[in-house]
Amino acid sequence: MTGPAPRNPDWRRHIEEVFASNAMMRHLEISLDEMSPGAVSVRAPITANVTQHHGYAHAGLAFTMGDNAQGMAAYSLIEPGQGIVTIEMKINLLAPAVGEALVARGFVERAGRRVIVTRAEVVALKDGTEKTVALMLGSMAVV
Amino acid sequence: MTGPAPRNPDWRRHIEEVFASNAMMRHLEISLDEMSPGAVSVRAPITANVTQHHGYAHAGLAFTMGDNAQGMAAYSLIEPGQGIVTIEMKINLLAPAVGEALVARGFVERAGRRVIVTRAEVVALKDGTEKTVALMLGSMAVV
Amino acid sequence: MTGPAPRNPDWRRHIEEVFASNAMMRHLEISLDEMSPGAVSVRAPITANVTQHHGYAHAGLAFTMGDNAQGMAAYSLIEPGQGIVTIEMKINLLAPAVGEALVARGFVERAGRRVIVTRAEVVALKDGTEKTVALMLGSMAVV
Amino acid sequence: MTGPAPRNPDWRRHIEEVFASNAMMRHLEISLDEMSPGAVSVRAPITANVTQHHGYAHAGLAFTMGDNAQGMAAYSLIEPGQGIVTIEMKINLLAPAVGEALVARGFVERAGRRVIVTRAEVVALKDGTEKTVALMLGSMAVV
Repeated sequence: MTGPAPRNPDWRRHIEEVFASNAMMRHLEISLDEMSPGAVSVRAPITANVTQHHGYAHAGLAFTMGDNAQGMAAYSLIEPGQGIVTIEMKINLLAPAVGEALVARGFVERAGRRVIVTRAEVVALKDGTEKTVALMLGSMAVV
Repeated sequence: MTGPAPRNPDWRRHIEEVFASNAMMRHLEISLDEMSPGAVSVRAPITANVTQHHGYAHAGLAFTMGDNAQGMAAYSLIEPGQGIVTIEMKINLLAPAVGEALVARGFVERAGRRVIVTRAEVVALKDGTEKTVALMLGSMAVV
Repeated sequence: MTGPAPRNPDWRRHIEEVFASNAMMRHLEISLDEMSPGAVSVRAPITANVTQHHGYAHAGLAFTMGDNAQGMAAYSLIEPGQGIVTIEMKINLLAPAVGEALVARGFVERAGRRVIVTRAEVVALKDGTEKTVALMLGSMAVV
Repeated sequence: MTGPAPRNPDWRRHIEEVFASNAMMRHLEISLDEMSPGAVSVRAPITANVTQHHGYAHAGLAFTMGDNAQGMAAYSLIEPGQGIVTIEMKINLLAPAVGEALVARGFVERAGRRVIVTRAEVVALKDGTEKTVALMLGSMAVV
């Protein structure tokens, strides 16, 4: 199966530059993981900085990672000179985010000229296994 | 107009304890602002740690604050011994989050025995004015 | 308090025409209720055609009404020749929809040039009282 | 791959009974399509009764079908004597719903004891091809 074709030959560098200019990613220790056209994943350790009152990773970490992964997936399919901003995003939390790290995988579901529909799954990595902790569904504007 | 009656006489202390045990709040410099039964607001400065690639506060900060404000609003109406976890949350972004600080105001819309429906508005404070940057609508489980 | 100013002097007629050309509204007996710039409500009787397995009005009726009310509210603020399509919509159900009729009130929260953010409340009318049965939050594209 | 195991040996009959008692399904000509544990699809013709002002099937039809398919998928995994009600539901519209019929496929993503997280895809059938017109993500309460 082949995915959608990027319209910017430098899409990888564009994503790396946008990601690198995002201070929130550094502050939450989120890094780029894997990229292909229409699908980007990001990863972050679950540290003592990002837990909530039950000791799990805060939903805000899962949201931030999933929003970013979806945005980067959208960046992989736009033209040079265009940018992406989130219109809206929904997250459903499926299980406590417990483990060593979270990985958020963002996917483009439909790349319109003005609106790109995306989804993400966020998984927790613990002792070599992974568990889905959140599902997301959102819209990005092409600007 | 009178709001809903708290069922825990120590609801303020309960919220303060839950909030204080939440490391993510400290890491993002989010603090409790105002509390009344069914309505809690939180506040955070927009620092160089929390911006995204356009220089605005990251949507993840607005989400984290709004999710927390809604959770704390839900905590104000539950019984001693009960807790709150987010089931799901949606955020619509209305405007770039630019300014000195963000304030997220969470409100209980319906307090069921098992599910509490909440909403939030997130505003940016800039030069003495405030602008709505996000609206949220979500569900909390009573556990 | 004054609301936003319509940019189409014939906005009322535009809404009436769009509404009249919508067969789903007739099939579900939904009618226009009240209109002002940025705020439109619609109404429908709860008949034996629209109930679900518990005997309440189906969530699909509340959704269809609330989506339409938000779309019509968006129509009230666009320019002549423009149209509105729903990008996405979320509904939280607060209480069973029981009674003689439902009313959905749609409001524009932010009217951007390309995306209009809207919300709605849906209430059930029963024996002269009204009860909120659903809250909605969505995005409309200006086309 | 094997799916989740039903906890009600009569789950098929339970779904058929619940579906048959749902007047809104008859009014919109929605019928049960396929069922397996955790996955149920429903189908409806696109008739002149269910179009909107652009002549496409109304988003309310896609929502009603997707909500129902997700609810029925949840019914396939609960115990005898339990029921399902929708807590909340989000729909993203990807393309105009044009064609002869819509099919909504609902899936259980996580079956908790009290909350079941579900998703759906809604496709339009036209001249022997199918096109995704909507994606949904929601929560069901077990009652």
